[in-house]
Amino acid sequence: MAQVVQNITRAQADVIDALGRAGAATVHEAQGRIGCLASYMRPIYAGAQIAGSAVTISAAPGDNWMIHVAIEQLKEGDIMVLAPTSPCDMGYFGDLLATSAQARGCRGLVIDAGVRDVRDLTQMGFPVWSKAVSVAGTVKETIGSVNVPIVCAGQLIETGDVIVADDDGVVVVRRADAAEVNEKSQARLALEDTKRKRLAAGELGLDIYDMRARLAEKGLTYV
Amino acid sequence: MAQVVQNITRAQADVIDALGRAGAATVHEAQGRIGCLASYMRPIYAGAQIAGSAVTISAAPGDNWMIHVAIEQLKEGDIMVLAPTSPCDMGYFGDLLATSAQARGCRGLVIDAGVRDVRDLTQMGFPVWSKAVSVAGTVKETIGSVNVPIVCAGQLIETGDVIVADDDGVVVVRRADAAEVNEKSQARLALEDTKRKRLAAGELGLDIYDMRARLAEKGLTYV
Amino acid sequence: MAQVVQNITRAQADVIDALGRAGAATVHEAQGRIGCLASYMRPIYAGAQIAGSAVTISAAPGDNWMIHVAIEQLKEGDIMVLAPTSPCDMGYFGDLLATSAQARGCRGLVIDAGVRDVRDLTQMGFPVWSKAVSVAGTVKETIGSVNVPIVCAGQLIETGDVIVADDDGVVVVRRADAAEVNEKSQARLALEDTKRKRLAAGELGLDIYDMRARLAEKGLTYV
Amino acid sequence: MAQVVQNITRAQADVIDALGRAGAATVHEAQGRIGCLASYMRPIYAGAQIAGSAVTISAAPGDNWMIHVAIEQLKEGDIMVLAPTSPCDMGYFGDLLATSAQARGCRGLVIDAGVRDVRDLTQMGFPVWSKAVSVAGTVKETIGSVNVPIVCAGQLIETGDVIVADDDGVVVVRRADAAEVNEKSQARLALEDTKRKRLAAGELGLDIYDMRARLAEKGLTYV
Amino acid sequence: MAQVVQNITRAQADVIDALGRAGAATVHEAQGRIGCLASYMRPIYAGAQIAGSAVTISAAPGDNWMIHVAIEQLKEGDIMVLAPTSPCDMGYFGDLLATSAQARGCRGLVIDAGVRDVRDLTQMGFPVWSKAVSVAGTVKETIGSVNVPIVCAGQLIETGDVIVADDDGVVVVRRADAAEVNEKSQARLALEDTKRKRLAAGELGLDIYDMRARLAEKGLTYV
Amino acid sequence: MAQVVQNITRAQADVIDALGRAGAATVHEAQGRIGCLASYMRPIYAGAQIAGSAVTISAAPGDNWMIHVAIEQLKEGDIMVLAPTSPCDMGYFGDLLATSAQARGCRGLVIDAGVRDVRDLTQMGFPVWSKAVSVAGTVKETIGSVNVPIVCAGQLIETGDVIVADDDGVVVVRRADAAEVNEKSQARLALEDTKRKRLAAGELGLDIYDMRARLAEKGLTYV
Repeated sequence: MAQVVQNITRAQADVIDALGRAGAATVHEAQGRIGCLASYMRPIYAGAQIAGSAVTISAAPGDNWMIHVAIEQLKEGDIMVLAPTSPCDMGYFGDLLATSAQARGCRGLVIDAGVRDVRDLTQMGFPVWSKAVSVAGTVKETIGSVNVPIVCAGQLIETGDVIVADDDGVVVVRRADAAEVNEKSQARLALEDTKRKRLAAGELGLDIYDMRARLAEKGLTYV
Repeated sequence: MAQVVQNITRAQADVIDALGRAGAATVHEAQGRIGCLASYMRPIYAGAQIAGSAVTISAAPGDNWMIHVAIEQLKEGDIMVLAPTSPCDMGYFGDLLATSAQARGCRGLVIDAGVRDVRDLTQMGFPVWSKAVSVAGTVKETIGSVNVPIVCAGQLIETGDVIVADDDGVVVVRRADAAEVNEKSQARLALEDTKRKRLAAGELGLDIYDMRARLAEKGLTYV
Repeated sequence: MAQVVQNITRAQADVIDALGRAGAATVHEAQGRIGCLASYMRPIYAGAQIAGSAVTISAAPGDNWMIHVAIEQLKEGDIMVLAPTSPCDMGYFGDLLATSAQARGCRGLVIDAGVRDVRDLTQMGFPVWSKAVSVAGTVKETIGSVNVPIVCAGQLIETGDVIVADDDGVVVVRRADAAEVNEKSQARLALEDTKRKRLAAGELGLDIYDMRARLAEKGLTYV
Repeated sequence: MAQVVQNITRAQADVIDALGRAGAATVHEAQGRIGCLASYMRPIYAGAQIAGSAVTISAAPGDNWMIHVAIEQLKEGDIMVLAPTSPCDMGYFGDLLATSAQARGCRGLVIDAGVRDVRDLTQMGFPVWSKAVSVAGTVKETIGSVNVPIVCAGQLIETGDVIVADDDGVVVVRRADAAEVNEKSQARLALEDTKRKRLAAGELGLDIYDMRARLAEKGLTYV
Repeated sequence: MAQVVQNITRAQADVIDALGRAGAATVHEAQGRIGCLASYMRPIYAGAQIAGSAVTISAAPGDNWMIHVAIEQLKEGDIMVLAPTSPCDMGYFGDLLATSAQARGCRGLVIDAGVRDVRDLTQMGFPVWSKAVSVAGTVKETIGSVNVPIVCAGQLIETGDVIVADDDGVVVVRRADAAEVNEKSQARLALEDTKRKRLAAGELGLDIYDMRARLAEKGLTYV
Repeated sequence: MAQVVQNITRAQADVIDALGRAGAATVHEAQGRIGCLASYMRPIYAGAQIAGSAVTISAAPGDNWMIHVAIEQLKEGDIMVLAPTSPCDMGYFGDLLATSAQARGCRGLVIDAGVRDVRDLTQMGFPVWSKAVSVAGTVKETIGSVNVPIVCAGQLIETGDVIVADDDGVVVVRRADAAEVNEKSQARLALEDTKRKRLAAGELGLDIYDMRARLAEKGLTYV
C-alpha cells in the first residue's frame, strides 16, 4: 500500500500567504476553533511564522527514507508534514535534508517525532515544529507513503491542506476552506485592531463586550 | 458560589519589589524551601524577573471569561494567577487580554493552563509562566471566581500573596510573611556575594563550608 | 559503599575537542548510532556546543552534597554528569556551584534532574543539559559517590568517557573508542560537505544516494 | 457545523463478530500493521473482547451532552467512539449512560478522555477503553457532532468502521476492508495454532522460520 | 515549622459513612463538581470504597518518617493523606506501616507519591490511592508536619476534611460541608434510581431530560 | 557489533529462588536501597512474584527479531530482559514467543517497551513487566545483541544478574552479590515478622524504633 501521490492540488498562493500573516491563533478562531495540532508540537526556534501547502509523509518509526521521496514532490511554498506510524521521538530530519528541501522552496517541516541539527536549521532559517529534539538518527529500511491522508499530532492532514504555524503552534485549514477562512481571519484582525486600541486606553473588556448583564444573570456576585 | 472579592490586601510595595530583585530561588531558600510551583510552569520568554500581588482566578476548563472579570480588579503591581478547575492546556490568554491587563499595571500572568500569542506577548514585554503554549482558544460560557484561594501548579495561592517569578519558575510567599522573607532574602544575597568571590578564586565549597569532617563521619571514603 | 575515585583516566585532549566541534548528531552516527541520552535532556540556553571528560556523580534524590565533593576532582576540560538514585526534578545546581566549577575549568553539567539560576548560568556561559529547571533547592544530608559508573538519562556513563553536548542533546563516547569515533566523525563531516553542496544546488537525495531502484524493489509505487 | 448523521452503513454482522473473536493484535497484523489507537487507551477491567460498528462522537472538552444524542443513533452491535475537540481527562461517562446504551444493544465505549463509575460498569459488563478514569463530571452546554469522521487516540475513525478492542488495546478496521481483513485474520489464526504447537514442543522460532542464514548474513556473530 | 497538631475535629461518623456509601462521583456532583484529586491517583486494587477523616501528612521527598508520627494521631475511621513537599514516586508505605495503621482503625491511605508491598496490602484489605507503585524505599532523616493543611494531587486538604475514595478516584469534602453534601448525595442517589430504571427500559435521556428543544436552539441539525 | 554471548554464568539456583520468595521491596532494602527499575515498569497481571537469571536483549526500536535469538540461549529459571536502543512502546512480545520461552523454562520477561496478547499470557501464567501494553506489532529487520550489558528502565543489567519482580516492580541484584543480599533479605524478613506482630498488637513504631528523642532533637513540636 506504500505509494507516492504525485499530482496534488494546492490552495491559492495569495490566500496561503495571507493566512500565514494572520497567524495560527487568528486562523484557528476564524475557522470556528478547529484544526489545531497537539500543544506538544513546539518550534525549534522563536519567531518563525509561516503558511504553506501540506506535502504529507507517513513513515515507519525510526525510518526517514520517505523524506527523501517527499522532497522530490515539493513545490515552492510547500510544508512537509510527517507522522510516524507508531510514536517515535528519534531525529528524522537534519541540516542535509533541510538544505535539499529549502533548495526546492520548502518553507518548513511539521513532524510528530524528533528533529536534530537544530543549530544549523536555526542558522539556515528553516523552521521545524516537532514533538522532540533528538540526537538519535534513523535508518532507511522501510517504505511508507507520500501525499496520503495522515493523522499528525491528533489532526487529520490531507495533501494540499494549508498549514499555518508560528510560536503558538500549528493549525491545519482544509484546502477547500482556505479562501473563506482567510476572509474571516482578515475581518477578525481588523476588529482586533480597534479593540486593542480601546483596551490599551484602559477600557475594560467587561464594557466593550457588554458582559456585565450576562455575568449577573449567570449568578456572579461581587463581595 | 461564583464570586468576585473586590477589596484585597496587598503586601508593602517596596518589599514586593525587593523580593522580585532577589529572584525565585533565593526567596525559596529564604523562606525555608517552601512555596515553589511545579517545575512544568515555564516562562514564555527568557529574562523576565518579576514580583507582584496575586489576583487569583478560578476558571472552568477551556473558559477564559473570568479573566475579563479579574482585569477590573487589578491594581498597579499585581500578577494574575489562574487555575482551571480541571486540567486544561488550552490557550486562555493572548495579546488583547495582555493589552488590557498591562494598561491597568499588571506585571504578568501565572497560569496552570495554556497561553497563546506568545510572539506578541514577548514584544509587549508581558511575561507569562504557563503549563503550555497552545493555539486553541477558549469560550466564555461558565462563570468562576476571582480573588478566592486557589491551588495553582500544586501550591495554595491566596489573594494578595506575593508571587515571585523568573527563569527558574514561580514561588509564592504568604502576604503576612513577605517582610520577613525579604529580610532573609537580602541577608542571603549579601552572604552569597562573599561566597561567590571565594569560589571564583578557586576555594572549594568543601573548605568554605567545612564539610570534610561531616562527610568522613557519614562514611565517605576516597580511593 | 559511598566513595570518591580520585585518579581517573581521560581521553586525549585534542580528540575530545575535535569531537566537540563535530557535535552530538555527527558523533552519534559515527559510532554506529549508539550512546545518546534521553531526548528530555535539554540545554538551558541555545548555542552551547561542548565536549569533555565525564566526572560522574551518584546522588540521593533532593541532595546536592556530592557536587561539592565532585568539584574538587575536576580538571580543566571536564564535564560533570549527575544521576540521582531515584527520579527527582529539584534544582541541584545553581550559580555558586557553577562559579566554583568554572574556576576549576569545568565545561558544563549534564544532570538527570533539575537546575536553577538559569539566568546567571546563561550570563556566565556555563551550559547545563537537564531534565528540568526548578526553583526547588536541595539539602546536604546524604552521601553518594563520585567517579563510579552511573546510568544517566538511560545511558551508562563511566568516568572519563567523553560527553558531547549541543542543542540537539547529549551523547556519550566510551573513552577507549574516542579516537576511532573522532576519525569517523571527521570523515563524515567531510562527506557531508560535499553532499550539502549538491543538495543545495537542487540535486535530489534519491539520485545522490541512488535510492530509486531499491525503493521500487521494496514495492513503492507512484500514482 | 454541529450535526448528527442518522443513517450510517455498517459492515456485515458475522464479519464483525469474527473480527472480535480474532482480537486486536491478530487483526492489526492481518491488515498490515495499521490502525491501532495509542497505547494509553486502556480497558477499565480485564477480559473484555469485543468488536462493533463505530458510532462516532465529537464533543467539546468537559461536555458530555452529545453522548445522549449519540445513544439515540445506536443499533445492536455498535460501539461508541468519542474524541474531545481538545485534550480532556474528565469523566464523560458513567453507569446511567451505560444503562441507556446497553439497553440499545451497544457493546462498549472507546473514549479519548475519562470515564467514571467503573465499579458499576464492571458489574454491568459494559466495557470501556479510555485515556483516564476520573471522578470529575462534565456539563451539557455545548453541542458537537455525531457520526462525523473523528481522530481518536491518533487514529482517524469514520462512522461504521469496525472497532476491535480487548486487553491489548483498540484497533480500527475500515468498513470496506472488514471482510478481507477478517479472512486474513482467520488464516493467521489457523497458522498460529500450528506454530504454537511446535513452539510448545520445544522447537525454536529460529528453525521454524528459517532465520539463521538471514541473521548471519546481516552480520550476527556468536561468541 | 515542623509540627504535629494533636487535637483535630472530625465530621459526624454516620455522615462520613453515608458519604462513603454514596461514592466519589456522586459526592463530587452533589457538592457542585469540586474537590476531586488529580486522576493519576489510582487505587492499588479494585473494589475498595471508603470515606474517612483526613489526618494530613507533609513529608520531605523520599522520607517517610512522619508516617510513624501520624499513626499515633489516628483514630478509628481516619484516612491518612500524604503530600511530599517536592514530587516523588518512591514507595513511602508498605505492609508494616499498614499493619500499624490498621491496628488503630485507619481505613486507608491517599498518597501523592509511591507505595509498595501492594500484594500484602491487598491481602490485608488496606486500600491505598497513590500516584505510583514503587519498590524504592525511603529514609527517616527529615521531619515534616502532621495535621496541617496540605495540597495533595492538586487539592487543598485540611485536617478533618472528609475523604471519599473508590475505583473512580478521590474526592475531598470540607468538614463543615459534610452534612449538607451528604443530604444532596442521598437525594441524588434516589433520583438516579428512578432514571436508571427508565433508561434500562429503553427511554432516551433526550426525552427524560427534555433536551431536544435546547439542542435545536443551540443549532444542532440532523442529516 | 551485534553479537550473541552464549555461555553465561548464573547465580546459585537456591539463592535465586530465595530472593524470589523475599520479594522486590525486601531485596531492595537488603542491598542498601539500590537496583530498582523505574516505577513505570508494571506487571501485566497481579500476583506474580519471581526471580531468575537475566538473559539480556538489546533490540532496535520496533524490532523483535532478537527475542527469537535470545530464546535459544535460555535455560531453566532464566528471565529475559529487553531494552530497545531508542524509546519504543510497541508490542514486541506475545503468546507465541511466550509459548516458546516457557517451553525452555523461562520464568518471565522484563521489557522497557510494549507487550501484547496479555489475556493469553495471563492464562498461560507467563508474567511480564513492561512499560506499555500495545497492540502494535514489530518487524524482524535489524539485528541486535543478546547477553551484553544493557540499560533497562534506568538500571544497568548484566547477563546473569538476578532479577526479582513482583507486584511492586523489578529489582536487579548483581550476580556476585546474590548470596550476600539473600542472607540480608532473610534476616530482614525474620525481623519484620517480629515487628509486624508488635505493630498489629497496637504498639507504635515511634516506641518500637525509639524515635521520640530524635524527633524532638530535630525540632518537631506537638501542639
